[in-house]
Amino acid sequence: MQNNKKIKVAICGYGNLGRGVIKALSNPINQDMELVKIFTRRNPSTIQSLVDVEVVSTNDMDLYTDDIDVVILCGGSKSDLPVQGPEFAKFYNTVDSFDTHDDIPSYLETMDTISKEAGKISIISVGWDPGLFSIARSYGEAILPSGSTYTFWGKGVSQGHSDAIRRISGVKNAIQYTIPIESAVNSLRNGEAPNLCTREKHLRECFVVPEDGADLSAIEKQIKTMKSYFADYDTTVHFISEEELEHNHSKMPHGGMVFRSGTTSEGTKQIVEYSLKLDSNPEFTGSILVAYARAAYRMNVLSSESGSKTVLDICPALLSPKERKQLIKDIT
Amino acid sequence: MQNNKKIKVAICGYGNLGRGVIKALSNPINQDMELVKIFTRRNPSTIQSLVDVEVVSTNDMDLYTDDIDVVILCGGSKSDLPVQGPEFAKFYNTVDSFDTHDDIPSYLETMDTISKEAGKISIISVGWDPGLFSIARSYGEAILPSGSTYTFWGKGVSQGHSDAIRRISGVKNAIQYTIPIESAVNSLRNGEAPNLCTREKHLRECFVVPEDGADLSAIEKQIKTMKSYFADYDTTVHFISEEELEHNHSKMPHGGMVFRSGTTSEGTKQIVEYSLKLDSNPEFTGSILVAYARAAYRMNVLSSESGSKTVLDICPALLSPKERKQLIKDIT
Repeated sequence: MQNNKKIKVAICGYGNLGRGVIKALSNPINQDMELVKIFTRRNPSTIQSLVDVEVVSTNDMDLYTDDIDVVILCGGSKSDLPVQGPEFAKFYNTVDSFDTHDDIPSYLETMDTISKEAGKISIISVGWDPGLFSIARSYGEAILPSGSTYTFWGKGVSQGHSDAIRRISGVKNAIQYTIPIESAVNSLRNGEAPNLCTREKHLRECFVVPEDGADLSAIEKQIKTMKSYFADYDTTVHFISEEELEHNHSKMPHGGMVFRSGTTSEGTKQIVEYSLKLDSNPEFTGSILVAYARAAYRMNVLSSESGSKTVLDICPALLSPKERKQLIKDIT
Repeated sequence: MQNNKKIKVAICGYGNLGRGVIKALSNPINQDMELVKIFTRRNPSTIQSLVDVEVVSTNDMDLYTDDIDVVILCGGSKSDLPVQGPEFAKFYNTVDSFDTHDDIPSYLETMDTISKEAGKISIISVGWDPGLFSIARSYGEAILPSGSTYTFWGKGVSQGHSDAIRRISGVKNAIQYTIPIESAVNSLRNGEAPNLCTREKHLRECFVVPEDGADLSAIEKQIKTMKSYFADYDTTVHFISEEELEHNHSKMPHGGMVFRSGTTSEGTKQIVEYSLKLDSNPEFTGSILVAYARAAYRMNVLSSESGSKTVLDICPALLSPKERKQLIKDIT
């Protein structure tokens, strides 16, 4: 055990999530870890980092294998991670937040092959959904096999839905909030196990900045009838100014709930609820990534494990800054 | 991997918890497991089991090592488990719900030595607190290092407090409910991180059946001033008849909440809540023990691990009846 040595962490990608990771690493309780590099696809000299750390190009990713224990990949799932994940996994332990649900099994397989060849660990799909919510669903279903799982998201901004609105002609800018329907949540808390359709679980509320002279009712109609995105939901549309959007809708709050509602014998109801209420989605996700970077280090550098893992493969004790014995004493 | 072979489970102790375990094992979704023996300290012929399974004496515990994969110990933490844990761990993989908080580290050490010598796994302190609540506290603290953890219990019956009342002279029978104080819970949900003293977190409500002619005000005073048990709480006492106790207070509901309330940067609040609402405490705890028996089997019989573990040492995937790949596909 190399307990006095700090875990050397790099990040790749300096957007909202990357900055969330840097904030988590600067927490004094995470003093077993330190940020040693920022990788960027851009020209490193254009990155104005909040912290004093070397910024280097992803083109040189193979040059720092002696200096870095774990790379936290902070790019997006659509185009960044499918490329950067396999590339970095050749050289480093990695942690990422890959969240394209349907592609997780194949991404896991790709990363597993590369990580095993490299003798490294990659932990994929870390965050809160997938991530902490996957964990909540997994415990819930294992402990209450007879029952139903319900996931609610929000109140929070959906980037995908906001983007979909922005692509409509006449729209200058937009933010979309996904909002759980309170009556549905309360019925679960009261021990009912309703069959909820899409419309009964979430509302969608849109704040739209129109171009000058745009046809507002046409925009509203296009939003409300948009298939896959809005047609199956009760959707409200508010037209606001750019200033109002900037002033009232520039934060990134989010949250959600996972319920497991089951029975252990005829009529004996058991309800488990896991809820998040987040002022900042990227800072919370960044904090999770940092805890799993610690696990990646312990599994690979301290225990010589390799391959690709999900949060379901990692025991809770590996995330804590405390030594196992102290953690068990303090927390059990 | 011996996937077609059922996991052969025995229980030791046929009380409320043992019956909860049997109900969980009879769930068709847990069909990878089967109950093969009941151990009892009593004369086996006096046990009327609800299911058709051989009942044997704990004196013969060493006779069935070929027939049993995991023994779930369903005795109490005060006098049963400190004896039965080490005895059974010599021969079997074990799972227990040892919950004497202060003694967990030394019990873990004792069990670890024995289990390693035996080449078996013992999983200790499984249940919801310690257990699922330990897991919630552990994830919460690792992900939000700057913050506070709050645990609430109830509404539910505290066996220890009920017993304490029953020992008062003039008391025939009694049930005590621990009740979280709603205003405290709501302040946490609203993002406040208050310093709560004992009295501000829980109420205690007592239903007491007095002996004929007992001095009710003396009983009430003795309860309310009882140190460690009631003196630090707002306590209400109701005197009721034995029939009313039997009719209204014979169920075993329980529940509770773990909050982690933290910040990831100045003023950025993040709140995690884990809540349980249980119609039957022993059936829920029994279900948890069964899921961890599956983990014990996988760790020892399939992966040749040995030693003593807590819930913090066991990854979520090991609890599921599903194979890992299917679980990741379904749940991540």
